[in-house]
Amino acid sequence: MSKLTIAIDAMGGDVGPHIPILAALKSLQLHPNLHIIIVGNRTQLLPVLKKYQLSEHARLSLIHTDNEISMEVNPVYALRHRSDSSMHIALKLVSQGKVDACVSAGNTGALMLLAKQALKTLPGISRPALISSLPNMHLGHTYMLDLGANLQCDSHTLFNFAVMGSVLCEKVDQINSPRVSILNVGKEKNKGGDVLQHCAELLKQTKHINYAGFVEANELFTCRSNIIVTDGFSGNIALKSCEGMGRVFSEQLDKAINSSLYSKLLGKLLRPILKKQLKHLHPDMYNGASLIGLRGIVVKSHGSANEIAFTCAIEHAIQETQWQIPASISKKLETVLSERDDLSHE
Amino acid sequence: MSKLTIAIDAMGGDVGPHIPILAALKSLQLHPNLHIIIVGNRTQLLPVLKKYQLSEHARLSLIHTDNEISMEVNPVYALRHRSDSSMHIALKLVSQGKVDACVSAGNTGALMLLAKQALKTLPGISRPALISSLPNMHLGHTYMLDLGANLQCDSHTLFNFAVMGSVLCEKVDQINSPRVSILNVGKEKNKGGDVLQHCAELLKQTKHINYAGFVEANELFTCRSNIIVTDGFSGNIALKSCEGMGRVFSEQLDKAINSSLYSKLLGKLLRPILKKQLKHLHPDMYNGASLIGLRGIVVKSHGSANEIAFTCAIEHAIQETQWQIPASISKKLETVLSERDDLSHE
Repeated sequence: MSKLTIAIDAMGGDVGPHIPILAALKSLQLHPNLHIIIVGNRTQLLPVLKKYQLSEHARLSLIHTDNEISMEVNPVYALRHRSDSSMHIALKLVSQGKVDACVSAGNTGALMLLAKQALKTLPGISRPALISSLPNMHLGHTYMLDLGANLQCDSHTLFNFAVMGSVLCEKVDQINSPRVSILNVGKEKNKGGDVLQHCAELLKQTKHINYAGFVEANELFTCRSNIIVTDGFSGNIALKSCEGMGRVFSEQLDKAINSSLYSKLLGKLLRPILKKQLKHLHPDMYNGASLIGLRGIVVKSHGSANEIAFTCAIEHAIQETQWQIPASISKKLETVLSERDDLSHE
Repeated sequence: MSKLTIAIDAMGGDVGPHIPILAALKSLQLHPNLHIIIVGNRTQLLPVLKKYQLSEHARLSLIHTDNEISMEVNPVYALRHRSDSSMHIALKLVSQGKVDACVSAGNTGALMLLAKQALKTLPGISRPALISSLPNMHLGHTYMLDLGANLQCDSHTLFNFAVMGSVLCEKVDQINSPRVSILNVGKEKNKGGDVLQHCAELLKQTKHINYAGFVEANELFTCRSNIIVTDGFSGNIALKSCEGMGRVFSEQLDKAINSSLYSKLLGKLLRPILKKQLKHLHPDMYNGASLIGLRGIVVKSHGSANEIAFTCAIEHAIQETQWQIPASISKKLETVLSERDDLSHE
C-alpha cells in the first residue's frame, strides 16, 4: 500500500476543531498508510491534539496559520483577502502535490471559489460540481450532482455531470456502466424543458453512458439509478427537502415516544431496533460532498458534522485518491467528447 | 347559508370511481348546503351510487358521459379530441356558472390546459399555478406555489404567485398580512440567480405583501412563512422529495416494528401514540392542489387519493367558493399592479 496524505482544514465548520481532529485520529487508525496534515491555528489545535495524544503522532503533522475563513464571509471577499487562511493553505498543498487531497467543513462558496483558483478545472469543465450520495433502498446509495455549485446549467454541463458521476461510481463502487438518470417533474419522455430534453438526447447518443431516463424526486431513495443528474438549484432543493422532512419525522417520533411514561418505556425497548433499521437513512453516513471536475481532490464536510460524519468525508477523499478520480474523469471526458465530435462530423 | 354546488369529475384518478363517490357522501354529510354533481360514466357510477344509497340523494345528481381522459394521454391531445370527457364537462359547468367549483383527480397536465381554455385566466395572469399546503410545525400549514404548472418562471410571474398565495391565506386562514418567502438555496440576501433577486426586490417594494425573505428547503416544515413562492420545477422537486423521504421513513419504521415478534408487540402498543403524533404529517391531510389564477375554482386531487384525501380536496373547493378566491385575487392584483405603475411613473 502506497503512502497517502490528506490535508484537513481544521478551522472550518460550526463545531470547533475537536471534530476534525477526532476524525483524523479515527482515520489514522483505519488506514496504516495514511498521513494527515492538520492546517489551522496552533493555539487552538495543540491542546486538542495533546488531549488525544496526537501531538507526537508519527503520521500527523500541523501547519500553523492565524488566519481562517468564517462561515459568514462573502466567498469573493475570502478569495481576495484571506490568502493565508487554513482553507487556502490546505488547497495549496493539493495544488503543489504535497498532499493527495484535502477536506474542509468550511464555507462552501469560499471553498468552491478557492478550489477552482488553486486547482483549476479539468479540460472541458468550466466549473466544479458538488456530488454526494443519498441512501437508496435497493442500491445502497445513489450519487446526485450538482448540489448547489452551479445554480443554472445548460444541457452540456448536465451531460458533463453524467460523465463525472459515472466515473466516480464506476471506480469507487466498482460498478460497470452505472445507470444515469436526469431529475425531472415526470418520468415520461416529453416532460421538462428544453435543457433536460436536449441533455437526454445527448446522453442517449453516447455509448459511454448508460442513460436510464428521467426520475422524479419521490424516487430518490428507491430508484434503480446509480447517478442522478440535476442543476445545482434543484439538487440543493431536493437534498434539503429530504433533510428537512427527515428531521421533522425524527423529531415527531421522539415527541411521540416522550409523550408519556408508558410510551417512554415502550420507546426505550424499541429504540435499539428503530435505530438499527433507520441507521442507513442517517445523514452522518452520507456526509462528504466532493468538488468534482477539478484537477485535484477536495471534499466538503457538512459544517455541523460530528466525528463519524467527518470521518466519512475523509474516507471519500481517500477513496477518490486511491481511484485517481480526476485523471479518470479527464480520460473519460476526452473519449466522450471526441465521440461527440465524430458524430457531428459524420 | 347559501346553496353551494360542486362538480366532481369521477373518472379521473388511479383508483376507480368509488373514492370520489365516498368523498362526495362524506362532504354532503358535513355540509347541509352542499349540492354535488358527479360527472362520468353512468354504467360504472350507478352501481357504486346505489351501493352507498346515493342514487336517490336529493343533493346529488349525475351527468353521464362515455368519454374520459386517461392518466397517460398527452394533454394537448386531450384538449383537441376529448371535448365531451368528464373533465371537460365538469369544467364547463364551472364556466357556465352552473356549479361553483370542480374537483378532479385526473391527468394534471390535461386539467391545466382544459381549465385554462374553459375558464380563462384572471387579468394580469398568463397561466394558472398549482398551490397546495404543507404541514408546518409552528403554523399548522404553509402554502407553496407553483407545484409544477409553470416549470420556468420570470420574476413577475413569481411576484404574482406571492399575490395569489397571500389572498388565499388571508381569506381561508383569516390571517392578516401573511408572511411570504421565496424558496432559495440560502437565506442570505445575495443568494440565488437574477430572477429570485428581482422578485425579492419587487416584493420588498410593494406595501401590499408582507415579504419575509428567502427560505431554504430544509425549513419547509419549520419556517415562519405562510406562503412559499417558487417556480414549478423546484416546487415539484421539493414536494416530491418530501413525499419520497416521508414514505421511506414510514416504511423503515414499519420494517423495524415487524422485524421480530418482540418488536411487533412493542410496536402494537406504541403504534396508536405514533399514529396520533405523526398524523399531521400524513399526506392525506394535505391533499388538494388548487389551480389558482383562473376565473373559476378548480381543485386537483392526487390521483391515488383515498376517501379522506379526496374529501379534503372537496373541502378546499368549498372554502375557495365561500371566500370567492378568484374575485379576491383579481381585486388584489389590480391594487398591487396599479401601485407598481404609480411607482414606475414617480
